[in-house]
Formats: sequence, C-alpha cells, structure tokens
Amino acid sequence: MRFISEQRFDNGCLEREFTLGDIPGILWTPSSSPSPLILLGHPGGMNTMYPRLASRARRCAQNGIAAATIELPGRGERPRSAGAERARADLRRALAAGEPVDEIVDRLVIPLVDRAVPEWRSALDALLSLPDVRGPVGYSGGLIALGIRLAVIEPRIAAAGLFAGSFVPRCMFHEARRITIPLHVLLQWDDEANDRQSALDLFDAFGSREKTLHANMGGHMGVPEFAGDDAARFFARHLT
Amino acid sequence: MRFISEQRFDNGCLEREFTLGDIPGILWTPSSSPSPLILLGHPGGMNTMYPRLASRARRCAQNGIAAATIELPGRGERPRSAGAERARADLRRALAAGEPVDEIVDRLVIPLVDRAVPEWRSALDALLSLPDVRGPVGYSGGLIALGIRLAVIEPRIAAAGLFAGSFVPRCMFHEARRITIPLHVLLQWDDEANDRQSALDLFDAFGSREKTLHANMGGHMGVPEFAGDDAARFFARHLT
Repeated sequence: MRFISEQRFDNGCLEREFTLGDIPGILWTPSSSPSPLILLGHPGGMNTMYPRLASRARRCAQNGIAAATIELPGRGERPRSAGAERARADLRRALAAGEPVDEIVDRLVIPLVDRAVPEWRSALDALLSLPDVRGPVGYSGGLIALGIRLAVIEPRIAAAGLFAGSFVPRCMFHEARRITIPLHVLLQWDDEANDRQSALDLFDAFGSREKTLHANMGGHMGVPEFAGDDAARFFARHLT
Repeated sequence: MRFISEQRFDNGCLEREFTLGDIPGILWTPSSSPSPLILLGHPGGMNTMYPRLASRARRCAQNGIAAATIELPGRGERPRSAGAERARADLRRALAAGEPVDEIVDRLVIPLVDRAVPEWRSALDALLSLPDVRGPVGYSGGLIALGIRLAVIEPRIAAAGLFAGSFVPRCMFHEARRITIPLHVLLQWDDEANDRQSALDLFDAFGSREKTLHANMGGHMGVPEFAGDDAARFFARHLT
C-alpha cells in the first residue's frame, strides 16, 4: 500500500489516496485514532463517485470512524474486461426495452464479485496494518452483491449497511441466508433502477437475527438526509 | 374534561388520569410546557396496556412532548357492544383455524373506528385547551386504522407513527391514499399476528410524500429499543 496524496479537511478528517499494487484507493481517517473502519462500496468508477463517497466518508469521520474504498476491477482507470463491457451494454439495452435482465445480471455481477472480493480482502489486510486503523470493520454500500459475499466469507466484517439499489444475482440469495452479522438495509421504495419485490425478497432471505429495513421515498438518488443519519447510528452502535 | 388523579415521575413527567364524559383517559406532560402532543393509539383495554403506554409516554416526555390516550368504545371498563364482542370471538376462532379474516376485520374495525374518531377529536379539543398543551399534534400507535382515519380527517394531526401490527379493513386502503402528512411506519417483519404483504401493500398505498418504513425482526412484541428511538426522532423532527 503506497500513499500518493493527502489533504486534511476542516473537521480534521485526513483524506489519502493510495495504490495497492495497481488498484487505486482512498482512505479517510478521523482526527481521533486508532479508529473503526467502514469499507465504502460503490458501483465502480471511483472518480465519478468521488463526491458521494467523500460525503459518506466525512460523515463516518464525524462519528470517529475511518472509511476506505478501492476501485472495482474493470472500472475507472483499471483495464477493461470485454465480457463485462458487453454485459453492461446488454443490461442498458434490456432495461431500456423493458426486457428481463436476470441472465445479464449474472454475467455482469458474478465475475465482478469473484474478482473484487480478494482485492477488498487484501485492502483490508493493508488498512488494518496501519497504526491509525484498528477495527471493528463495517461494509457500507451500493454494490450489495459485494457486501453479501464479504459479509459471508470475511470474518472481520462485523456489520453491514446495504443499499438495495443494485442488481443481485438470484444465486446469491443462498449466500444471503448464510449472513449472521447485523444488517441495515436501505430501500428507495420507488427506485426506478431497482425491482422492489426483489429487494424485499432479498431482505427476507438475509439470515441475520438483527436486520433492519429502512424504506423511503425519493427515487434512486433521493435518499433523505435523515436516512443517512439512521445508517450512521447503526454503524456507531455496532462499531464504536 | 375532569382530572381525577395525578402523580409525578422522577424525570418531571406529570401523569394525570381524566374522564371526558364517561370516557377514561390519561395525560402525561413533560416538565417543560406548553408542549407538542402525541395521541397514543392502542388496541383497547387501557389498564392492561398501561405499562407499555406509560413507557411510550415517558419517552415522549424526555423529548419535551406531552402524550395522551383515551379508552376505546366497548373496551376496558366501558360498556360492551354485542356485535364487537361477537366479531372479536370470530376473529380469534378464524385466526386459530387459519381461515380468512377480511369480513370479520371489517365487522370489528370499521364500527370501532367510526365510533372512536369523534371521541378522539373531542379529546383533542379538550387537551389543546389546557395551558400546558400547545401542539403540533402527532398520532402514534397500534390501532393503525384509527390513525389512518384521523390522519385523513383531522387537520390538527401533523405527523403519524403507525405500527403495522393490527388489522386494517381493505376499504380503508382508499383512505390511506388520501393521507399527506409525514408517516413513520413500523413493521415487525415476522409478526405472527399480522400479514406482512398486507402491511407492505398498505405502506405502498399511503399518499404521503414523506413516508418511511422501518422493518425489524423480533415478532409482534419484540420491537427493538433502537426502533423506538428512531420513532422518537421522527416525532422530534416534525413536532418540536
């Protein structure tokens, strides 16, 4: 892990860009340390996502929690995969035409998760070896399939906040049943980019004894401010 | 409105029993006044429900909000109605036998709401004329059908927290569409006494632009402590 830039914000939060091999990433740490850590999931394209990631990270820092993320395979400035690019184009076309997308989602998301998970675990190794990051660790984010897999196989993940706003292959519902950590699931009730019934089925499938669903109005991008506060309180309860 | 007893709790909350004509009721006021007010809905039988009502009321008082409730028609020590008693017995029998209950719920809940609503509005008149209660007013509670009707026809109700744990006649789904005030809906995901799909359909039907569903595990009586905190924050946001 190599730090390549740093800047400090008004609230004392330190933002550092890093590389892990050829994978770019960002770490935000609060002024108090060592601190718990939240891995920020996203749909890929860290630069495009930066404003929203930084905003989520600053909220973590306000609660004394570090946050980190890395670029997904085949996204941002990382080498493209022909299969993933094809699947992404097929998905856009199928959604526009109102056609079924299950097979395309499988082709797109399953290889992405398979490739991303070892990278996120390596990033976790590196992050937890830093003097200012201690754990426990949470996963928060929109690439819900990545969160599911990490919650199942990575014992250092103690709690997850999942945004039910992205596609989950049906075969991963079986993995969802094996999750036992506390879950906080955010659902935008009229999410134009997401099937509500599928999100409710997934929430039902999660094996966790403590799981909470917060559904709100406002469309895919319209998560209300108070819903973000609720998610922050969930993590504060389980990580601090 | 005639006060018949009073006691003050450690946190300064004053509990007063009252009668409104022949209807018994309880008012809890915080030490700071005049204050907003939450009407506490319940399934009837105020004495049996007292521990849970008092606990909800004390939480209101901690947030500087008064709380009040009155006995439902035909419940507690109020005169019984033969039709309601028969419907209640039929409901118990049908639930035990796993038979459909829609017709019985109509027979039980519709007349109950029709009779209760004018009483709750009279109670509201009396409560808001007290020097220590100012408003705005919220409705919180388990008799969700009463909350729906009040939210539609009583303009003084500014926000409602509804517990999706009681039966709602299907014909009231049309009323639900006419609600415009902010709603906070609590659903126990594995509620043994409530049909989940019907609760989700009802949440979908609510016409409010701000409506939030919080679903949790733990069965009908197992609402987690943090879910109560969330509901309290909803009311604090809209009433204080």
